[in-house]
Amino acid sequence: MSICQPLSPDARALLEAEARTEMRNLVGWHLEQVEETWRLVKTYRTASFLQSLALAERIARLAEAENHHPAIEIAWGRCTVSWWTTRLHGVHANDVRMAAATDELLFGG
Amino acid sequence: MSICQPLSPDARALLEAEARTEMRNLVGWHLEQVEETWRLVKTYRTASFLQSLALAERIARLAEAENHHPAIEIAWGRCTVSWWTTRLHGVHANDVRMAAATDELLFGG
Repeated sequence: MSICQPLSPDARALLEAEARTEMRNLVGWHLEQVEETWRLVKTYRTASFLQSLALAERIARLAEAENHHPAIEIAWGRCTVSWWTTRLHGVHANDVRMAAATDELLFGG
Repeated sequence: MSICQPLSPDARALLEAEARTEMRNLVGWHLEQVEETWRLVKTYRTASFLQSLALAERIARLAEAENHHPAIEIAWGRCTVSWWTTRLHGVHANDVRMAAATDELLFGG
């Protein structure tokens, strides 16, 4: 048996409850399962491929500043951002905060 | 009935055969179905999130120059590129050439 064990059921339940509480204020984000991990996902519409890339570049600066990184898919007319926490195979309250910060970055005052 | 019709079976068969011929020289690419569309996909490993972004920026310049755009997913340590042709719901010989050009751009002489 390895020294490091997965989260206890109690810890997992607490972390999930905390994430759900934070999620109540998010608009346009949904949960999506990729392999064994739940991700918090939103697609932003854009007017070109380069606009999608520009969004990714702005989100990258936020991610570097927090040292917490999403996946970003850029394509013509859309930029899809996914936040998750690898150790949890799921969404932590911090991911919800990063999602809110992404909205704020792209649309905020 | 709308004026524009899908490709005839003969045209589709010819285009698929042409794409398959071109694909013989590709290394590390595979076909992946996303919704109703087949894409030509490769994941490049990187050493950070910003390196993944830098690959995306280089591929974006190639895509803009050819006015043919992939989807690129960047994440910490990997950059995944997908080429397809929307009208075909699949891979055209041009997508195979863009895949080869992507390899050449990132690793070529």
